[in-house]
Amino acid sequence: MSGGLDSSTCLAFAKRAGFEVYALSFDYGQRHRVELEAAARVARAAGVADHKTAKLDLRMFGGSALTDQIAVPKGRSVAEMSGEIPVTYVPARNTVFLSFALAWAEVLEASDVFIGVNALDYSGYPDCRPEFLEAFEKMANLATKTGVQGRTHLKIHAPLIDRSKADIVRLALELGVDLALTHSCYDPDAGGRACGECDSCLLRAKGFAEAGVVDPV
Amino acid sequence: MSGGLDSSTCLAFAKRAGFEVYALSFDYGQRHRVELEAAARVARAAGVADHKTAKLDLRMFGGSALTDQIAVPKGRSVAEMSGEIPVTYVPARNTVFLSFALAWAEVLEASDVFIGVNALDYSGYPDCRPEFLEAFEKMANLATKTGVQGRTHLKIHAPLIDRSKADIVRLALELGVDLALTHSCYDPDAGGRACGECDSCLLRAKGFAEAGVVDPV
Repeated sequence: MSGGLDSSTCLAFAKRAGFEVYALSFDYGQRHRVELEAAARVARAAGVADHKTAKLDLRMFGGSALTDQIAVPKGRSVAEMSGEIPVTYVPARNTVFLSFALAWAEVLEASDVFIGVNALDYSGYPDCRPEFLEAFEKMANLATKTGVQGRTHLKIHAPLIDRSKADIVRLALELGVDLALTHSCYDPDAGGRACGECDSCLLRAKGFAEAGVVDPV
Repeated sequence: MSGGLDSSTCLAFAKRAGFEVYALSFDYGQRHRVELEAAARVARAAGVADHKTAKLDLRMFGGSALTDQIAVPKGRSVAEMSGEIPVTYVPARNTVFLSFALAWAEVLEASDVFIGVNALDYSGYPDCRPEFLEAFEKMANLATKTGVQGRTHLKIHAPLIDRSKADIVRLALELGVDLALTHSCYDPDAGGRACGECDSCLLRAKGFAEAGVVDPV
């Protein structure tokens, strides 16, 4: 639960599907740590059963513009974004995040994990692809007690994976998500305001524009 | 790299196989945090290229005798150990650990990850089984840049997985590991001394006894 457009919509989706939701955020050394305030606002507004924030330091490895002294790219076209894997990619981030979710799920005896990744209007991250999620799910079902005992089958849900950003904006509004509470920018200013020029801001703007909706942020 | 018998032997094995070794330990809220001192001693003695310790809090989820207010079982027979998954199992621990190793490996552009798990004389942990490691390797190769680009293939090595504890003791001695530096106990006293009665102590004692070697610890 990053507090962005996608994870906030994913949370609302899981709630509407009837799940009791335990939200998990990560304080991992990200440049845009202000997103955690958005995550807390959105989780509170959604009425989750619990919201935890795991503190872990992915800066210790570096290798990304989000966790290291590397500039966040600005003003790129969508074509440029979908070429090479961008420097905002954080090595193994979703693997680490899903591993923590798996740990909590096992303790909660939960059999469903939702993640708001998107493989259509995305930034070319390897760990947002369906084939990655399928492989993670297979691994997760062997990693835990329930996998050994065959009691439950852990399912990784990625309801946004094949939606466009415009679709996600429309779905968020249909689900009643207050998008004013969300934060998407990779490189906010000291006051937490979005830069409007990083890949994340540009993809969000494109989504709102195509959906014909004004972004309250 | 926990600083126990298995991870210390695994490290020496990787060095002898010609690898430059980057050791990774975890300060995860474990009851036997003193093992990190052993990890530092062993890594130093082995002459690793780097040794990092990732700080993360698996106590936030609990659910294990190693990270929660649950008593560590004492005086169990090996038959008792190999029945149910014991309460010392930490939910998704090896998945979390290997995910961090994957993150560092990607930044280092390393293609080989070694883990000292053992599925023969072990405590029945689901995430020590070969099928788990195979599934993790498949997932890891889809999770990262190199997987997308097909440049290198990440390999998870578990050289101890099918060895008995006695075999591991013999291998450690053959590889010149100073076993006096290691720590295996789940429930040491305030001075860091092994209890001699937890599963980890008993499996270690069994290994030394069967190898006909006196444990310097």
